[in-house]
Formats: sequence, C-alpha cells, structure tokens
Amino acid sequence: MIVQKYKDMLQGKSVIRQLSEFATQRGAEIGYENVFDFSLGNPSVPVPQKFTDIMIDLLQNKNPMELHGYSQSLGIPAVRDKVAASLNKRFGMQYTGNHIFMTTGAAGAIAHAVRCVSEPGDEIITFAPYFPEYGPYVNLTGAVLKVVPADTDNFQINFEAFEEMLTEKVAAVLINTPNNPSGTVYSTETMRRLAAIMTKKQEEFGHDIFLISDEPYREIVFAGVDSPYPSKFYANTLSCYSFSKSLSLPGERIGYVAVNPECTDADLIATMCSQISRGTGHNCPPSIIQLAVAEVLDLTADLSVYETNMNILYKELTELGFECVKPGGTFYILPKALEADAVAFCEKAKKYDLIMVPCNTFGIEGYVRLAYCIDTEKVERSLDALRKFVKNEY
Amino acid sequence: MIVQKYKDMLQGKSVIRQLSEFATQRGAEIGYENVFDFSLGNPSVPVPQKFTDIMIDLLQNKNPMELHGYSQSLGIPAVRDKVAASLNKRFGMQYTGNHIFMTTGAAGAIAHAVRCVSEPGDEIITFAPYFPEYGPYVNLTGAVLKVVPADTDNFQINFEAFEEMLTEKVAAVLINTPNNPSGTVYSTETMRRLAAIMTKKQEEFGHDIFLISDEPYREIVFAGVDSPYPSKFYANTLSCYSFSKSLSLPGERIGYVAVNPECTDADLIATMCSQISRGTGHNCPPSIIQLAVAEVLDLTADLSVYETNMNILYKELTELGFECVKPGGTFYILPKALEADAVAFCEKAKKYDLIMVPCNTFGIEGYVRLAYCIDTEKVERSLDALRKFVKNEY
Repeated sequence: MIVQKYKDMLQGKSVIRQLSEFATQRGAEIGYENVFDFSLGNPSVPVPQKFTDIMIDLLQNKNPMELHGYSQSLGIPAVRDKVAASLNKRFGMQYTGNHIFMTTGAAGAIAHAVRCVSEPGDEIITFAPYFPEYGPYVNLTGAVLKVVPADTDNFQINFEAFEEMLTEKVAAVLINTPNNPSGTVYSTETMRRLAAIMTKKQEEFGHDIFLISDEPYREIVFAGVDSPYPSKFYANTLSCYSFSKSLSLPGERIGYVAVNPECTDADLIATMCSQISRGTGHNCPPSIIQLAVAEVLDLTADLSVYETNMNILYKELTELGFECVKPGGTFYILPKALEADAVAFCEKAKKYDLIMVPCNTFGIEGYVRLAYCIDTEKVERSLDALRKFVKNEY
Repeated sequence: MIVQKYKDMLQGKSVIRQLSEFATQRGAEIGYENVFDFSLGNPSVPVPQKFTDIMIDLLQNKNPMELHGYSQSLGIPAVRDKVAASLNKRFGMQYTGNHIFMTTGAAGAIAHAVRCVSEPGDEIITFAPYFPEYGPYVNLTGAVLKVVPADTDNFQINFEAFEEMLTEKVAAVLINTPNNPSGTVYSTETMRRLAAIMTKKQEEFGHDIFLISDEPYREIVFAGVDSPYPSKFYANTLSCYSFSKSLSLPGERIGYVAVNPECTDADLIATMCSQISRGTGHNCPPSIIQLAVAEVLDLTADLSVYETNMNILYKELTELGFECVKPGGTFYILPKALEADAVAFCEKAKKYDLIMVPCNTFGIEGYVRLAYCIDTEKVERSLDALRKFVKNEY
C-alpha cells in the first residue's frame, strides 16, 4: 500500500518554495527584474570557464565507454586521491583517497554520514538556526534530530543548552559552518570548546560521538574572518562537502564525505558508505562530473559578489534599525524582524516586492533570511523598497 | 557509534567483483585481450554521437547558471514531459510529466519505488534468477525480499510457487524483464497471468499490491521476441528505468520511475518520491545529463553486437552439450554448469582464462552467467578456450 508517512509529507509545503513561486508569479506581472527576490540560495555567478573547457575536452577526446562507464561506487579512485591531496594541502590533514567517499552533493554526503554512525532511535544534535532539510535528512533514517536553541548574540553555539542536551542517546552532532541561514562562521574558540565538550562526553559515556560537519559554504568566507577547518579539532569527524556553491554547480550533484584519518574505523567508513548506497540507491555521482571537478578542486567561481552584496545589505539593515549579526560568509543574512511575528513581517514585505524568508522552520522565531546571491545592481535597487517598507509599516 | 550492520556487510565480497578483479590481474600477466572476461555487465558500445554533440552544445551555448542550476527534485519539468511523451508514443500509455520521477539510474528508481509502497516488515517478492543487488535494495529499506524459485524450463515464472508465496504480507512484486542473468523476456502470456493473479489477490486481501518493474534492458531485445510493456497489463505498476544500457551511460546515473496513470494515487506518487529523496540524499540526477538525455530518448547505442554475440555463444554452448535457454534480450546468457557445483565449475574455467559468474547468489544453483557485452572478435576467440575447457575437464 502507498506509504502514508510520505503522503502526509506532501501537506507541508516548504515556505521557501511558496515564496519563490510567489516571486516568479509576481515577476510575470511586473518583470522579474523588479521583484527583489531574496528567497533562494541558488548561486548567481557562473562556473569557472576551466570546468566547461574540461567537460568539452572529455567529451571530445576521451573514449566514451571509459568516460561514461560504471565508476566504483566509492567514486573514481584518481578523483578520490585528488580530493584528499587538495584537502591535505589546504588544511594540513593526512587524508588518503581511502578516506574520501564521493557523493551526490552535501545531501548525499549527510545521508551516508548519518546512517554510518547512528541507529534508528539515536539522537543527532544540531544548532539553531539550522537548514530545515536537516529534519527529513535525519528523521527519515529513523534517528531523531534535536535542536539546541540559538545563541542570538552572535549565532555561535549556546554551549550551556548543548551540554544539557548531550546525553548518552546522542550518536552525532551536526554542524554547518559557514552557516545557512545566519552566515556565521564558527570561530576557533567555538570549535575548541565544542570539541572539548564532545571529547569529555565520549569518555564519560564510553562510546563514540561523531561530528558531522556540513560545509557547502566552506569557500565563501569574507575578509578577515577566522574560518577553521572543523575536522582539525576533533578526530571523530566526517566532513560533508558539496561543490554546489563553490563552483556554482548545484544541479550537477557532486560532493563528498571526508573521513578524518584519526577517526574510529577511519579506514572502513568510506567503504561502509558504499554499502549504505546499496540501500539508498545512490551509487556514486556522475562520472563525467567527477572527472571534471577533480581538475578544478582548487578553483572557485568568482565569489566576491557575495561579500559586496553582504556589505551593502548589512549597512542598510543596521542603519534602518534592524538587529543583525554581521555574516562572516555564505550568501545569507539573518536580521531580526521588526515585529515578533516573522511570517507577518515577510507578508508585509511582499507588498514592496521584497521576498524574504521567515525563519521559524530554521529553529528560530522572529528572524528572517535574505539570500543575496543575486546581482549587486539588484541589491542596490532593493534598498529603496526596503526603506519604504520599514518607513510605511513600522 | 559506527553501525555494525554496514560494517558486517564489508565481509561479504561480491563474487562478481572478485572475478572481475581476477580478470584484471590475469590481464596484467598475459594481456587483457587474452582473458575471456564474461564477468561484468558494462556496455561495450559507445553512446550515440548525438548525445555527445548535445552535451557540447549545452556547455558552449547555454547560460551556465541555468544549465548547472538546481533542478526541481522531481526532475526538470520539460525533461519529464518528454519522457512521458516518448513512452506514450512507444507503448500507447497516457503518462503526463507528473507521472515521471527522474532518478539516478534504476538503483535510484527502485530505492524510491520500494519505499513508496512498502513499510518495514512488508514482503516484496521477486523471481529467481534475479539480480543479487535486489537483496540490499529491498532489505536495507526494512522490507523483506522473498524469492520465488526459478522455472528452469524457460526462466519465465514459476506460478505455482508464486501463488503460494503471495500472502497478505506482500506489498509488491519486483520483476526484471528482459532479465539479468537469464536473458529471458517475459511473454505476453506470462504478463497476463502475473497480472491476473495479482489482481485476484488484491481483491482477496483488500489492499494494493504493486508491481515494480525493473527495465534497464528494455531496449535490448532480439529479433522476433515478444517483449510486452509490463505496465500495460497491471494498473498498479511503477516502471523503473535506466539509460545505462540503452545509451551506454552507466556512469552518468540517469533513469526514472514512470507511474501508471491508472495506479492508486497515481498523481501523488512522483511527488511522494521527492519526499523520499529528502531522506535518501538523492535529490535528482545531474541537470546537464537530464537535458542531454531528453534529446535522445528515442535513440539507442548500436545494440546489435549483443545479438550477434548471443547467437555465437548460444550455438557453441548447445553444441558442447550445455543445457541453455536461448536469451530473448539483454547481454547475458545462463547455461547450466556441467557439474552440480557452479562455483567449482567457474574455478576450473579460470584455468582456460574463461571468466564466468556462478549464479548461486542470483537465487539459482548450478548455473553460470556469461556477460557477452564484449567485442565479437573476442567472443569468437573464446570458443576455442571453451571447447578445450569442456573437453579436458568433463
């Protein structure tokens, strides 16, 4: 019979999708260029030309049976080696290709990491504000997502609440730095303290507690911001990466799990992931994309526009009286709404063709997310609408 | 803690992989051209040139943000529409794009179909001989795979055993026609009888029983063979397809679920699949591959080599005294070994550099699979080795 659980999920339409659909519809009426659509986290800069050139070269010159043939379910060995070498060079790690499991984006990476280290009924802790998809990512495996309330001073970690929630039932802690939706980057101090608490609790409970570090925004960090590599602080770390944002390739579904070589069973985990794949129908990312990405591991799209946009918005929002933590990275900013009800606030903003996302489903009430992965020219034009909105409504 | 279930799975190394590794190793000694490697089902003919041309055109001429941007998790709407139109034209179906869910190959399709129609503890029936990956595909969802013994006369269906096993616990029946490993294509008569029994049992039990039809070999059917489209016979059918074999694109991970429009909740199932994806980390196949495949839906690679190879092998095997059902499609043939122990038989064959797969893990004892997706010239050269093997050992 049709499974009711998934049927029921159809009722809960995503707020982001509803807003994005409104923006598209409004765009059809007044021209999309006049809708200040801050709803979606879709990169606004093109992939590096070198990626495109390599794809074309592969298509023109590589034997098609090799190019499009089955790759090992762990990923193409040479690609895994190159990912390991790149991470070692950048972060002083000691990965080998055997610690890398290639995935269909960060979603694929987290799906494997969670299944690797938690059984149904186990708890996985994350920190508000958090990416709402963590709910289904975790809960549909049978594990249970627990959310530590936000530290609204700076969107680092509310350690007091965390220590209380870190009971024996917890199999893993899921972090996202740089963070969607706050734009906050966890500091060295935050990472040290997080690792110290987890280490202490591991000893106390006598079992592993894993750190699952979701890092799709790793490459989008603004000037002067301290952005440590989480795996450096804690041996039991599985780093989940996606090239979606760094290379502007979200549709091509490519990322990886990188297993800290000091982790428990470090040499088994990637291979275990390929066993998990047999149940999830994952079976590794597309070969041509693996091969092309492996040649541009140390490149990014031109990400500078995001910092430019952030500075414009942060200045205007604070001048307009918004409480707002300055983002250290990503392409998101999370001001506090000017009334307690963020949904009502965003509804009013729509009258000014300003599309923002209320963050109740991100585990934080009264805040709104602006995704500023749009042209700077449009961000500048949005300021007038923003001023009118605040002046007329508040 | 590291999940023991997946760790334990690492012990059971695939027979196919072991044989394939032996073939590679032996190839390093005597030249791979001298190893008659019938172990792997990797297509041996190139993708149609038009696919490559379209990929290059997309890379050169389409806006990269659109080309590589997020697609909807159900797949790109225009691609889904085209898949529906192509199936309607070929098989007289009434699909719309809303009945199509794009997946990462048949593995991704089956992962979604199984989760859509079965709860943990439910039974899913398949028929021997069967693709061994059906074990983890089904069992790792929590459902339980039950295998109906083979009808060794012709590898159609053992209906007597099937009727006995089709109890109230059964949520779905999983078929694979044309079949891996037998090469058999289910006839119109077989499909009619299967549908009649399932319809009767649905009424008797008062609940749906779904047909999950795995069809990666749909396009590889030999001259004169009746190859009906399973969904035509039974409303509650989810057809699972992969372009891996028809277009020789196994590494690019692209396929779909097609929901029969007469199925229970037909208009919800594709959308339900996209909810399931949130838990499996699937999130749709790569956009560029979706767009390119949509332009070559009615093309295939030049598949004629498989029929040529089948005829050569079938003739030789029967002349050498093997019991062997003539394949109607695929690139597999399943002769009965010349001794009861198929593993021992394949071990002896290795001495003649003949690499065949014993089919015990396919749910049938005493049979061996030859995957003849290799050059015809090599198939011809293998005959001498085959003759020597039989003459010397039996």
